[in-house]
Amino acid sequence: IKKVKIAVAHGDGIGPEIMDATLKIMEAAGAQIVTEPILLGEQAYLAGNTSGIAPETWEALHDAKVILKSPITTPQGKGYKSLNVTLRKTLGLYANVRPVRSLSPYIHTHFPKMDVVVVRENEEDLYAGIEHQQTQDVVQCLKLITRPGCEKIVRYAFEYARLHDRKKVTCMLKDNIMKLTDGLFHRVFDEIAAEYPNIKSETQIIDIGAARLAARPEEYDVIVTSNLYGDIVSDIVAEIAGSVGMAGSANIGFRVAMFEAIHGSAPDIAGQNVANPSGLLNAAIMMLRHVGQTEVAKTIEDAWLTALEGGHHTADIYQEGVSVRKVSTSQFAEVVIACL
Amino acid sequence: IKKVKIAVAHGDGIGPEIMDATLKIMEAAGAQIVTEPILLGEQAYLAGNTSGIAPETWEALHDAKVILKSPITTPQGKGYKSLNVTLRKTLGLYANVRPVRSLSPYIHTHFPKMDVVVVRENEEDLYAGIEHQQTQDVVQCLKLITRPGCEKIVRYAFEYARLHDRKKVTCMLKDNIMKLTDGLFHRVFDEIAAEYPNIKSETQIIDIGAARLAARPEEYDVIVTSNLYGDIVSDIVAEIAGSVGMAGSANIGFRVAMFEAIHGSAPDIAGQNVANPSGLLNAAIMMLRHVGQTEVAKTIEDAWLTALEGGHHTADIYQEGVSVRKVSTSQFAEVVIACL
Ligand SMILES: CC(C)[C@H](C(=O)O)[C@@H](O)C(=O)O
Ligand SMILES: CC(C)[C@H](C(=O)O)[C@@H](O)C(=O)O
Repeated sequence: IKKVKIAVAHGDGIGPEIMDATLKIMEAAGAQIVTEPILLGEQAYLAGNTSGIAPETWEALHDAKVILKSPITTPQGKGYKSLNVTLRKTLGLYANVRPVRSLSPYIHTHFPKMDVVVVRENEEDLYAGIEHQQTQDVVQCLKLITRPGCEKIVRYAFEYARLHDRKKVTCMLKDNIMKLTDGLFHRVFDEIAAEYPNIKSETQIIDIGAARLAARPEEYDVIVTSNLYGDIVSDIVAEIAGSVGMAGSANIGFRVAMFEAIHGSAPDIAGQNVANPSGLLNAAIMMLRHVGQTEVAKTIEDAWLTALEGGHHTADIYQEGVSVRKVSTSQFAEVVIACL
Repeated sequence: IKKVKIAVAHGDGIGPEIMDATLKIMEAAGAQIVTEPILLGEQAYLAGNTSGIAPETWEALHDAKVILKSPITTPQGKGYKSLNVTLRKTLGLYANVRPVRSLSPYIHTHFPKMDVVVVRENEEDLYAGIEHQQTQDVVQCLKLITRPGCEKIVRYAFEYARLHDRKKVTCMLKDNIMKLTDGLFHRVFDEIAAEYPNIKSETQIIDIGAARLAARPEEYDVIVTSNLYGDIVSDIVAEIAGSVGMAGSANIGFRVAMFEAIHGSAPDIAGQNVANPSGLLNAAIMMLRHVGQTEVAKTIEDAWLTALEGGHHTADIYQEGVSVRKVSTSQFAEVVIACL
């Protein structure tokens, strides 16, 4: 196989540690990739790039087709723009795909049968970043929704369901209040759902939808929703399945795709070799599938599962009576490699 | 005691049935109230009032100090404004208070120790209802946040905590993205928290906050948040405690207060005498406390608990092995009355 070029951002906080673990596992498994490091995040911010992205990184990003990214830290209190949002918007990464399933009994969850994929719109909504100070005491933020934006994400969700043999797509919105914006998303959902008669479709108001999802996640399959709701419900499903530390995500565009963990850079535990690399590793597994290296992806996934089943758990998921051994970040990587 | 005048909206869907049950229980318990029916909702909409509120109802509302309201149905597809939102804004009901606690083992929950009060901002945010169609394909909704709005709700939350001997107030926002709007709420939270050194305070990003709340609700005490996040997290806590059908809420203003269940009018089961009146009954209990009839409030609450502990459960919470008897709406009311 020809080696695939991957732009790799090592990130901040626990980023470098989990990236190190992930790259070692991929290498040991024989992934056919060439990595090119790019600098994003804290250092770039502090060097004066208000977007957190240095000019030379922009060049690399525009050449890249595949990006693997660790979480980054945005320095506080300077009004810096979110780098994640800038990347998603600038690179046109319109679909944020976040699969989560139960690993019970190896990882404790109340919901041993849950298996949910959140397909989150990734460019619009309140994340457009349009905020104004109206008066000293009045501020506003614009929630922006477009028909093409809705069409792209809803179609992606149904195509995802079709290709992955999923049975149902649930759309969650608050269109009883936001009749124009969420109403447009709902209309587009109904239009596109009609083109997929073999996939069940339903819409739920986000309040009760999120509540049922938290109480009975087994009832859900694929969920499609707008950016902010998707941010919230994807963290919910990951956490009730065991930990947000376990979930990876794919940010999909027409030209380029970026893979990352769904959690943040956790500066409080940085440099201690205790973080769970599973989120980023799952992102890497999605990445390998994306570039057609499905076999090595499967090999890594199986080894990862075997490591977890063996009870080798990092501190965040360590649980008396379920776990066998508390392992560090690098130890966990070694166990996964031994299981390959 | 002087009887307190209550404006009562019987509502739509299951509204009249659960109101009937609630009023019967209050009467049997000796609540000192005089009810004055007001017409809100479906019939008013269909009679041509686009707000769902007839002119004569407005007069009654402006006289009322206390309102007990059943859920209403907004007819579909006519672009009608939400009556709930109109009432909350017009009457200045700035604080939406939603207490939820576990009734384990009588009602099944994974979280037997949870006891959470969501204090939800009730007038601003995306609920301001300011939406525009920009082009055929572009729509927007304005999220509006004001300093006085933030101050009122945050102060309410801390005063609530102080008066109810609560230990901690958690604020949930997305100010890493919405730096001006959610940032203002966060700043006001920090300012007011500093005035209450005996109450623990913390802030969480709404994504991980909602996720932890869904996974470990016992870690939370009072939650204060803006309107839309509060809508979502209050449904989550109610549902994971057993059912959104159980929770009541108080909408508090400086001049008037309105009490209602947190669930909707459930037209699908209307008229069948199967709905759970507990949400509205809990709202009524909050109402009686609000008007100083604390003893009768306690009597009703105890009887309600005794009925549930006896296993008399409506269909929504009926569970094999936990429940003893499946009761109708009116039967449940009779059991509560017998327990008074
Ligand atoms: C870090 C933050 C900007 C980001 C988001 O809100 O999208 C994160 O929460 C996520 O879900 O990827
Ligand atoms: C019916 C709807 C307008 C309302 C809301 O969104 O506030 C409801 O969900 C609630 O929580 O009271």
